[in-house]
Amino acid sequence: MDIFMQAAIDEAKKGKAEGGIPIGSVIVHQGKIIGRGHNRRVQSGSPILHGEMDAFENAGRQPAKVYRDSVIYTTLSPCSMCTGAILLYEIPKVVIGENHTFQGQEQLLKDNGVEVTVVQDQQCIGLMEEFIRLHPELWHEDIGTD
Amino acid sequence: MDIFMQAAIDEAKKGKAEGGIPIGSVIVHQGKIIGRGHNRRVQSGSPILHGEMDAFENAGRQPAKVYRDSVIYTTLSPCSMCTGAILLYEIPKVVIGENHTFQGQEQLLKDNGVEVTVVQDQQCIGLMEEFIRLHPELWHEDIGTD
Repeated sequence: MDIFMQAAIDEAKKGKAEGGIPIGSVIVHQGKIIGRGHNRRVQSGSPILHGEMDAFENAGRQPAKVYRDSVIYTTLSPCSMCTGAILLYEIPKVVIGENHTFQGQEQLLKDNGVEVTVVQDQQCIGLMEEFIRLHPELWHEDIGTD
Repeated sequence: MDIFMQAAIDEAKKGKAEGGIPIGSVIVHQGKIIGRGHNRRVQSGSPILHGEMDAFENAGRQPAKVYRDSVIYTTLSPCSMCTGAILLYEIPKVVIGENHTFQGQEQLLKDNGVEVTVVQDQQCIGLMEEFIRLHPELWHEDIGTD
């Protein structure tokens, strides 16, 4: 397992331990994690802090050249909002844990020249399958389909 | 002036008074403002709290049916990230103060069936023109082009 995907999974597990939606993300610049985060809908009552958005928030204000030389790892295929943030800051590469339980805007990323890799990791799938089974209403709220 | 666009402009002015980027937004559901916000890059050191995102955050967790029956007002054409949030929650209508100083992803909104209206308001244009003249580096950071 790639250490950065493992770090994203660790974030997802932290979210699960807090009673939240188990999706995690890290942003890596030149081999170093500059931002890590996990979905905070439940914990902070936030509709915008998806895992990737929380990683951006925790990376803080960065120059454009840092984003453009970074990779974002996320345990789940990025939704429209997170895809938009990746495009805004021109992150050139996205590594996705799984797109089996949810397929986000991967095509829009590719159409804009972003390199997209899907690992299809069983741990990531397991975390989401369990969560969706136990809390379908929270999951649907998170992707705007409740 | 539409009272809701005026409320978005009031948010932009609040941001300016705080030394921030003067962009404001409100989300309106059935004639009532359910979330208001302004860009907080400077004030909170946030790369994700654009005006629209701050309005979503302040609206808090809402059922999908509320978003799908809401209008978002923003003083400036929405960037990729804010466009993505609007699409995630399927807000059907966006009213934009101006797209003279910055043209965001209006086409992507329209391609996804969102009704887009651009007011081209002189107050909104004036706020951004002044800010970009005085703080070009902050503005470029905000849209990932510094």
